[in-house]
Amino acid sequence: MSSATTAASPTRGEQTVTRILEGALELLNRTDGAAVTTNHIAAHLRMSPGNLYYHFRNREEIVRAIFPRIVAEALAATAPPTASQLTAHEFGERHLQGVRTLWRYRFYQRRLQTQYRGIFERLIAGGSMREPEPAEDLARLVADSTLIWANWIPHLIALRPSRDITRRDVVESALHSFLVVAPFLARRFAADTRRVIESHGARST
Amino acid sequence: MSSATTAASPTRGEQTVTRILEGALELLNRTDGAAVTTNHIAAHLRMSPGNLYYHFRNREEIVRAIFPRIVAEALAATAPPTASQLTAHEFGERHLQGVRTLWRYRFYQRRLQTQYRGIFERLIAGGSMREPEPAEDLARLVADSTLIWANWIPHLIALRPSRDITRRDVVESALHSFLVVAPFLARRFAADTRRVIESHGARST
Repeated sequence: MSSATTAASPTRGEQTVTRILEGALELLNRTDGAAVTTNHIAAHLRMSPGNLYYHFRNREEIVRAIFPRIVAEALAATAPPTASQLTAHEFGERHLQGVRTLWRYRFYQRRLQTQYRGIFERLIAGGSMREPEPAEDLARLVADSTLIWANWIPHLIALRPSRDITRRDVVESALHSFLVVAPFLARRFAADTRRVIESHGARST
Repeated sequence: MSSATTAASPTRGEQTVTRILEGALELLNRTDGAAVTTNHIAAHLRMSPGNLYYHFRNREEIVRAIFPRIVAEALAATAPPTASQLTAHEFGERHLQGVRTLWRYRFYQRRLQTQYRGIFERLIAGGSMREPEPAEDLARLVADSTLIWANWIPHLIALRPSRDITRRDVVESALHSFLVVAPFLARRFAADTRRVIESHGARST
């Protein structure tokens, strides 16, 4: 942790860690990135698996080490400018930098949507949900529900910047993202799910 | 890093780290969270500042250590269920868990919007942007532009799951989020910013 915040030039080990993370990002961001292993990453970097394992024990450790960079880059794109006057060049670069951050970590968005879709596929297989028609509507359902999920809290913060967000808001947000898929669920299953979500507002912790 | 992925019960040091991060989250999430210092966090936890400094050298190290948890929790909410049959109870809990993740880390969303707003305030002070009227429109502009920024790449992934996202898409995304604020910018400044963003599509790296 300390090393990440030191202003001094990075050590050899830190350089290797950065190289591994950048190489992993390249592979994970490909459309078939879900299948990437530590051996793929080592081969891609022409690095011995032993050298890679010295820094990371498995794929998940690498994925986890990538996470802090996402948020740090997003914050850097909106950080206060050093000069008192902000030039058009810097303003334009900030917009690009912000988007590049999301682009550099697109594997994570893809993984989130794939996993969420997997839950629906499980419900369809188990008879708790009917298959949308046409079948491509399933991807749209996943995207719609994810979009509402990801934006509800930021939306509330924008709406009422000086008030905190309550437990009831959490319930409301979950209901909105649930509502998109609810019409495709078996009636009893939908009612039970809604009850679970609504009962959260009544709990004391 | 190793310790975070070990299944064994956490050591005393790891427990202290978790306690510090949870206490910091509580304070950072308050609407006045931007002013929170390491001393506030230590006092809130009734912990000696020395004990806190043993684990984290400053506020930024704490904020950075919180980041990996955001993504890990979001992925856990959509992870494949262990049992073959997904119950309505678990399905409802997943929706709540997903929203709670965003709620637990709302300080970060707030910081992003505050920083982005700071850029516009700087432009207004420097004469490169006119103040929206009514003044509350500035918060709306910030929210609109952030919303487009945060959703463009996920939107493209949903739209064309099997194709990669190109450099041109990054430019298009930056232009969309820029377009919301462009009408408020001085004519020359807006044109220069647009040129910077568009020239990115022509670059080779």
